[in-house]
Amino acid sequence: MFEKKNNTSLSEIGEFGLIEHLTKKFPLIHPTTQKGIGDDAAVMNFTKGQTVVTTDLLIEGIHFDLSYVPLKHLGYKSIMVNLSDVYAMNANPTQITVSIAVSNRFPMEALEELYAGIELACKNYKIDLVGGDTSSSKTGLIISVTAMGQAQKEKITYRSGAKANDLLVVSGDLGGAYMGLQVLEREKEVFKVNPNNQPDLALYSYCIERQLKPEARKDIIELLEEVNILPNAMIDISDGLSSEIFHLSKASGVGCTVYEEKLPADPQTFSTAEEFKINSSTALLNGGEDYELLIAIKTEDYDKIKGHPLLTPIGHFTDQKEVCKMITGLGQSISLQAQGWKNFNKDESA
Amino acid sequence: MFEKKNNTSLSEIGEFGLIEHLTKKFPLIHPTTQKGIGDDAAVMNFTKGQTVVTTDLLIEGIHFDLSYVPLKHLGYKSIMVNLSDVYAMNANPTQITVSIAVSNRFPMEALEELYAGIELACKNYKIDLVGGDTSSSKTGLIISVTAMGQAQKEKITYRSGAKANDLLVVSGDLGGAYMGLQVLEREKEVFKVNPNNQPDLALYSYCIERQLKPEARKDIIELLEEVNILPNAMIDISDGLSSEIFHLSKASGVGCTVYEEKLPADPQTFSTAEEFKINSSTALLNGGEDYELLIAIKTEDYDKIKGHPLLTPIGHFTDQKEVCKMITGLGQSISLQAQGWKNFNKDESA
Repeated sequence: MFEKKNNTSLSEIGEFGLIEHLTKKFPLIHPTTQKGIGDDAAVMNFTKGQTVVTTDLLIEGIHFDLSYVPLKHLGYKSIMVNLSDVYAMNANPTQITVSIAVSNRFPMEALEELYAGIELACKNYKIDLVGGDTSSSKTGLIISVTAMGQAQKEKITYRSGAKANDLLVVSGDLGGAYMGLQVLEREKEVFKVNPNNQPDLALYSYCIERQLKPEARKDIIELLEEVNILPNAMIDISDGLSSEIFHLSKASGVGCTVYEEKLPADPQTFSTAEEFKINSSTALLNGGEDYELLIAIKTEDYDKIKGHPLLTPIGHFTDQKEVCKMITGLGQSISLQAQGWKNFNKDESA
Repeated sequence: MFEKKNNTSLSEIGEFGLIEHLTKKFPLIHPTTQKGIGDDAAVMNFTKGQTVVTTDLLIEGIHFDLSYVPLKHLGYKSIMVNLSDVYAMNANPTQITVSIAVSNRFPMEALEELYAGIELACKNYKIDLVGGDTSSSKTGLIISVTAMGQAQKEKITYRSGAKANDLLVVSGDLGGAYMGLQVLEREKEVFKVNPNNQPDLALYSYCIERQLKPEARKDIIELLEEVNILPNAMIDISDGLSSEIFHLSKASGVGCTVYEEKLPADPQTFSTAEEFKINSSTALLNGGEDYELLIAIKTEDYDKIKGHPLLTPIGHFTDQKEVCKMITGLGQSISLQAQGWKNFNKDESA
C-alpha cells in the first residue's frame, strides 16, 4: 500500500529533519510546558500538585495489524492508550512524548498520516507533544508513548483504596473492541481469498469504532468532579475487566462480587458475539481493549450516579480478601477467572 | 547463546509476573517519588524547581548487536543514553521508566541480565525506576527509556544561550566509542571465520569500554556547580561533535570556530584509528556515541576551568551567524561538515 509514486523516502530526510517535519504543526498550549521539542530534553513546570507518568509500547504484529488499521487511527489510539492510564489516576493529562521506529518501507507520507492522528488526539484532549525519538527499525513499526499529567495530591486515585461494601462501577460498555477485532480479522481472511470483495461493515460499525478509534474517558473524570465524587480506587480496564477486578481487589486487600447480568454492553456486541459463536460474557470479562474505567465508589455516593448512562454499578467489594466471585444470570456463584491479556503466547514465533 | 538448559521461558510467566519479577529488587530512594511501579501511572512530587523529560529508543540491529554487546552492559548503557540528555540540561536525573519488547528467543535469565545493568545504573546515579511496559516482539529486543530530572529554573541550560566570544568547551575525550565499535565489528567478522580464535583485546580496552559501558557526565555537572559556572548553553554530543556544534550555533544564532589540534582524544583512539586507516579527525568530529557534553562558557569563567583534565576548550563562538569553521593543524580554515549520525541509511534493508 506504500508503493505509490511521488512518495518521499525517509533516507532523503534524515532523523533531525524528520522530527522537525512531523511535529511542526503541533502547538504548545499548556502553561506548564516551558520547552517542547528542540533541546536535549523538554522542560515542564509541575510545581502545582503532583505529577503522574505512564508509558506504553505498541508493536506492529503484536498490538496492531496495518492490513486493516489505518495509520491515522493508530496514531490517535496510541495516545488514547496512555491518556486512559492518566485518567485512571484521576489526573489531567498535559504532555506526551512520542518515539517511533520505522523501516524504510514507510514513506514520509505514511508517517504524516500517523502524526495526523497524534495531532488530532492532542487537539481533542488538549495535550502538548514535547519530545520523542525517531529511529529506523529492521522490520515493522514501533510506537512508544509516555504521557504526563497533573492532579492535586488529595485527588489522585490509586488501585489500593477500595473498601468492603464500596460499589464497583464501570464506565461505558464492555466487549465492543474485542468483537470489532474479530470482525476485522475475519475480513482480512476474506480479503486474502477474494481481494475484490467489498465487505459491508455497517452492521459492525460500533464494534469496529471501539477497536480502531477508542476514546479515553476524560468525560468520566470531569463527571466525577462535577457530582463531587472522589473514588476510593480506580483502574483502567484495557487489559480486560476480570484481571483488573483482581488487581483492584489485591491492591486494596478486599474481595469482590460481580453480577453477570449487570455487565454493560452494546446490543451490537451481543449480536456480533452470537454470530461469531463467542460466549458474550467471555468477551465482556476478558476481551480487553475497552478503554474504560473501573471505579470503587462509596455506597453513600450511589445516588449521585444512579441511572447515569455512562456509569454502571456491576457489583461490590467484600471483606473476603482477594476472593472474586461472579453471580451468573442463573444465580450461581462462580469464581472469577483473571485471564487478562497475556502477550507472551506460546504459539508466537520467535 | 540463549540455548542453555533450565532457562525459564517468558510464556510461563506472563506480562504482569515479568515486570514484578524483574523490578522487585529496585528500591525507591527519591523523596520526589510518591508511587513507583504497580499502579496505572507513577506519581511524583515535582513541586520544587522545573522538570526535564527526555526519551530514547534502542533497537536491536540498529543501535546494538547482541553478538558482542553483553546484556548487562546494554541495560546500563540504555540508561546512560538518557541521563546524558538530562545532564545536558544542567539538571539532576531522578526517575526513569523502562519499556522493553522481546521475542520468545530471550529466556527470563537474559532479561535478568539486562535488568542487572539497569539496576546498577540506577544505583550508581541514584535514580528510581518508576514504571514501564513489557511486550513481546516479532523479532529482536527493543528498549524505550524515558528519564525525568529536576533543576532550579535559573540553572536549566538550553542550546540557545551561546553568545559570540563564549568559549566552546568539551568534556572528556572524543572518538573512543567509535573506534571501540570498529574493533568489535572486526572481531565479529573474525569470529565468523574462526570461532576458536581468542582475540587479545587488551590493546583496545579503553575504546571498547567507551563503546560498551559509557558513563553519563554527572561529574561534570557537579564540577560546574562547584566552581560556580553557569554555562550559557550546553548539549549532549552523542550524535557526533560536529553536528552538535551546528545545533548549538543554530539555536543560539551565532557562529563557531574550532581548532582541530585542540580536540581531546585518548592515545589509544589515535593508535586504533591509525591501525584501521581511519582519519582520526573524522572519528573525533563525527564518530558519535561519546556521551560527553559540549558547553558554551563565558570567557571570564575560563580561569575557573583552566587546565582541568576533564574540560577542554576547543574553540569559541563568533557573531557570524551559523558559520562553523575548523582551523586545521596546518592552519587552514575549512567549513565544518555536520554529518552527525543518521540512522535512515539508504543501504538499510526494509
